[in-house]
Amino acid sequence: MAMGPAIEEGFYFDFDPGKHKISEADFPKIEREMEKIIKANLPIRRQEISLVQARKLFKDNPYKQEWLDEIEAKGEKPTVYWTGDEFVDLCAGPHVKSTGEIGPFKLLSIAGAYWRGDEKNKMLTRIYGTCFPTKKELDHYLWQLEEAKKRDHRRLGKELDLFTISEEVGPGLILWHPRLSIIRNEIENFWKKEHQKRGYQYVYSPHLGKKSLWEKSGHWQFYRDLMYSPMNIEGTEYLVKPMNCPFHLQIYKSKPRSYKELPIRYCELGTVYRYEPIGTLHGLTRVRGFTQDDAHIFCTPEQLEKEILEVLNLAIFMLQSFDFNDFQVDLSVRDPKNKEKYLGSDRIWKKAETALETALRKKQLKYHRAEGEAVFYGPKIDIKLVDSAGRTWQGPTIQVDFNFPEKFNLEYTGPDGKTHRPVMIHRTVLGSMERFVGTLIEHYAGAFPVWLSPIQTMVIPIAEKHNQYAQEIVKILKENNIRAESDERNETTSAKIRDAELQKIPYILVVGDREVRKKTVNVRARGEKVLGEMSVKAFLKKVTSDIAKRE
Amino acid sequence: MAMGPAIEEGFYFDFDPGKHKISEADFPKIEREMEKIIKANLPIRRQEISLVQARKLFKDNPYKQEWLDEIEAKGEKPTVYWTGDEFVDLCAGPHVKSTGEIGPFKLLSIAGAYWRGDEKNKMLTRIYGTCFPTKKELDHYLWQLEEAKKRDHRRLGKELDLFTISEEVGPGLILWHPRLSIIRNEIENFWKKEHQKRGYQYVYSPHLGKKSLWEKSGHWQFYRDLMYSPMNIEGTEYLVKPMNCPFHLQIYKSKPRSYKELPIRYCELGTVYRYEPIGTLHGLTRVRGFTQDDAHIFCTPEQLEKEILEVLNLAIFMLQSFDFNDFQVDLSVRDPKNKEKYLGSDRIWKKAETALETALRKKQLKYHRAEGEAVFYGPKIDIKLVDSAGRTWQGPTIQVDFNFPEKFNLEYTGPDGKTHRPVMIHRTVLGSMERFVGTLIEHYAGAFPVWLSPIQTMVIPIAEKHNQYAQEIVKILKENNIRAESDERNETTSAKIRDAELQKIPYILVVGDREVRKKTVNVRARGEKVLGEMSVKAFLKKVTSDIAKRE
Repeated sequence: MAMGPAIEEGFYFDFDPGKHKISEADFPKIEREMEKIIKANLPIRRQEISLVQARKLFKDNPYKQEWLDEIEAKGEKPTVYWTGDEFVDLCAGPHVKSTGEIGPFKLLSIAGAYWRGDEKNKMLTRIYGTCFPTKKELDHYLWQLEEAKKRDHRRLGKELDLFTISEEVGPGLILWHPRLSIIRNEIENFWKKEHQKRGYQYVYSPHLGKKSLWEKSGHWQFYRDLMYSPMNIEGTEYLVKPMNCPFHLQIYKSKPRSYKELPIRYCELGTVYRYEPIGTLHGLTRVRGFTQDDAHIFCTPEQLEKEILEVLNLAIFMLQSFDFNDFQVDLSVRDPKNKEKYLGSDRIWKKAETALETALRKKQLKYHRAEGEAVFYGPKIDIKLVDSAGRTWQGPTIQVDFNFPEKFNLEYTGPDGKTHRPVMIHRTVLGSMERFVGTLIEHYAGAFPVWLSPIQTMVIPIAEKHNQYAQEIVKILKENNIRAESDERNETTSAKIRDAELQKIPYILVVGDREVRKKTVNVRARGEKVLGEMSVKAFLKKVTSDIAKRE
Repeated sequence: MAMGPAIEEGFYFDFDPGKHKISEADFPKIEREMEKIIKANLPIRRQEISLVQARKLFKDNPYKQEWLDEIEAKGEKPTVYWTGDEFVDLCAGPHVKSTGEIGPFKLLSIAGAYWRGDEKNKMLTRIYGTCFPTKKELDHYLWQLEEAKKRDHRRLGKELDLFTISEEVGPGLILWHPRLSIIRNEIENFWKKEHQKRGYQYVYSPHLGKKSLWEKSGHWQFYRDLMYSPMNIEGTEYLVKPMNCPFHLQIYKSKPRSYKELPIRYCELGTVYRYEPIGTLHGLTRVRGFTQDDAHIFCTPEQLEKEILEVLNLAIFMLQSFDFNDFQVDLSVRDPKNKEKYLGSDRIWKKAETALETALRKKQLKYHRAEGEAVFYGPKIDIKLVDSAGRTWQGPTIQVDFNFPEKFNLEYTGPDGKTHRPVMIHRTVLGSMERFVGTLIEHYAGAFPVWLSPIQTMVIPIAEKHNQYAQEIVKILKENNIRAESDERNETTSAKIRDAELQKIPYILVVGDREVRKKTVNVRARGEKVLGEMSVKAFLKKVTSDIAKRE
């Protein structure tokens, strides 16, 4: 027995199996033994002992000896925990009082792990498990684990031909295949339309900018670890952008502004690049290049609160449009003990934090106040989405910024004819296209609503003689902006239906002699719902209505 | 007199003015003198003389002496040209036989220029002029110059609030303001729709990729001067992309392909970055970052010719949609004397060149065969647009490539069950969004057709009491997807009309007592065309029809 802590979602223990081989097949045996120990309700007793005693107690265990070396070096006193009278382990605790207190548990998996995480050390066998106060909670957690496996967007990405991360291109850089690009295009069009409606103006900015721009903004000072190294162009250093804000600032500054123009809301689907260590990269949800659904609002101090409220409204409307109805809200403020990590005066921070908090209260959103989680230029609201499997994902962020307007000397002329300083809001409502779409794949388990589905309808002719009719149906659907295909492979109808179901296509239209004669289609909706025969017109009405309602 | 050659569009001569000051105000005087010389029909005579004679002839002219040094160093013999008996100049020629042969001319401008272009030398005075065989040709050229000034997209970009190039961001990097972004968005949507109709599949790719990818593609070898320096990420070098092709290749390679899937046509509005010397940058039309309307077609060798034809059809359709109806076509082939500058065998090049040439012949397009103008991986067709002022601009390019499929080992399974190599077509139909939109601004002189206009309709209330009615009209128009605004400033109606005309807005609706009472609008179309009073419905029908027809 080497060591094993409690972790976020359960526990693990590392063993040196010696000549033995442990596998997941052994779990029932081990679990039965654990049950016995719990049933016996053995008392657990803490004991402070001397180093000499401890050395002796664990004399056959080199791992504990190494641990004791460390305790000795620190000048601490070892503690052990006895379970009943037979079993003892070196541990700082705390523990439950007796084994009977331990709730329903489950061993989950087995993995290799180097002693103390160092690959120069021996490889041990790590057993993961989890434990909850009630059976219901354990079952819910196990269901979530099962769902997470089924919904894993990396697996679905392969099965549904959605995206590639290529070793030749580089980790964390996404190649969007045609099908996922259709989904992204639909989301982008919807996003642009909703932003336009609310008075946002779309802009485009480049992916490179002079290093001096990032020095001026403070990104180079506060954000350097996340930025890539500079390129030299004719003696000037340039950086790939990690943020869109300095560019939108420049557009604001391109001419004198009047209070009559404010608020100005610039939005852009802007692709940024940030360094993330290779070990933390994960499919679409943790990447090195991503497209923020970004916007920067320039407003008067008087307009600030209303603008934050409007952003909250937009964010929640957008998320609900993708069937996210449960959120967790954080208000991230400055760490008052580490003020040097942030730009700007106390007065400015207070103003910004108050504006965000007031908006949250008005919107009657419950929130958690997270000290030290603010960005270097201002406080923010972070909204986490809860998906259909109950897991949370990073979503919108709304940041108030009195600092950049100072640094970049932004101005407008007020009704008094004098020069004033605008406030800036940085915000995303989806976060990034990569992460949001990755989340969506898991949220819908790949079964996208009709409006997002890459193929909305698959027409399946029963025999070769029905191919022509199938093509006619596809043509009509396409003319009505429905993404439709016909499956004319030389396969059985049931094989074709199965394949279309595996591809999670929302509607399957089977056409044979009867349908050709009566000019109808036989409709199956996803989830083995047989809707039966209907006219082409009736089907068209149905699918068009789904799309219009974003279902 | 220092020196002066003939140039593409006329001539110049550099003078050392000594104590004299020459300005454009002196042009009439100089032109009158030139007229006299032409009228006198003086013979022009070439003479080969010795260096000694030449040194003596130009003994008071240090510039000619320096030129003679050079002739001496090269071991050449100087030639001079006599105009009549009085004027002589050192020149290699050739010249006309007598001054009477010289056609209508015009002095154009004056500028400072360092002797031999070296800023360490003395600043001379350069006079530019031009000359044509006929008055008609001269007048046409002068009209073009005048038009070019009026249409200059850099000037219009400022006047119409279209874009900024900021010193803080960097030269050659465009910040698209909201109005130009609307135009770009309209073009992109149209482009995407037309591509989708023709079986293209949209994809998204990142802006960075490992350096090794560009080494494999050959870009690093053949294109290095145009690429930015590498960034280091965890010990691996990455480059900002100058091309989209290696990414589209990776998507093709993400799974095994069958002949049944071909042709595969991946398209993307992909932003690339290439080095251009600062001196060559020019507004939107010569930049360092630009968005190619790119596509890569993967097809069987049998499909190649048809695919090229289809691309030609699409390219010409797209350009005609923007009122370009006159084209110049180049077929760029390999320089047979410098084969080492290109990838691939003679056989492959012949195949590719033949495919392009056959398509051009079938399409009955006149073309110029340009030897040595091919890309390193294959031959291409380049189409230049002729704009409404008669100037040519770079447009679509279509490149056939048998080389990348080899290098990246692209494959598909043929009907024979065996592995085959696809052919690749690289193509753009607009070129890049930046250059194309820059061209469009000049082509339309900022007066965009209705479907592209950032503001399609300006509603002008005559007095404050009409503001509410103006807002109602704007609301109705917006609900019908017309980009409309109302001008409620405290200005006279005629001042508001003038401003809307300066902004080149296609429709101006004036509303006063009469219009409020009768529920009408008084319509003026751009170009001072008064269309008069009409119902809101009638106007809506008119503007909607313009947009649908892309007028």
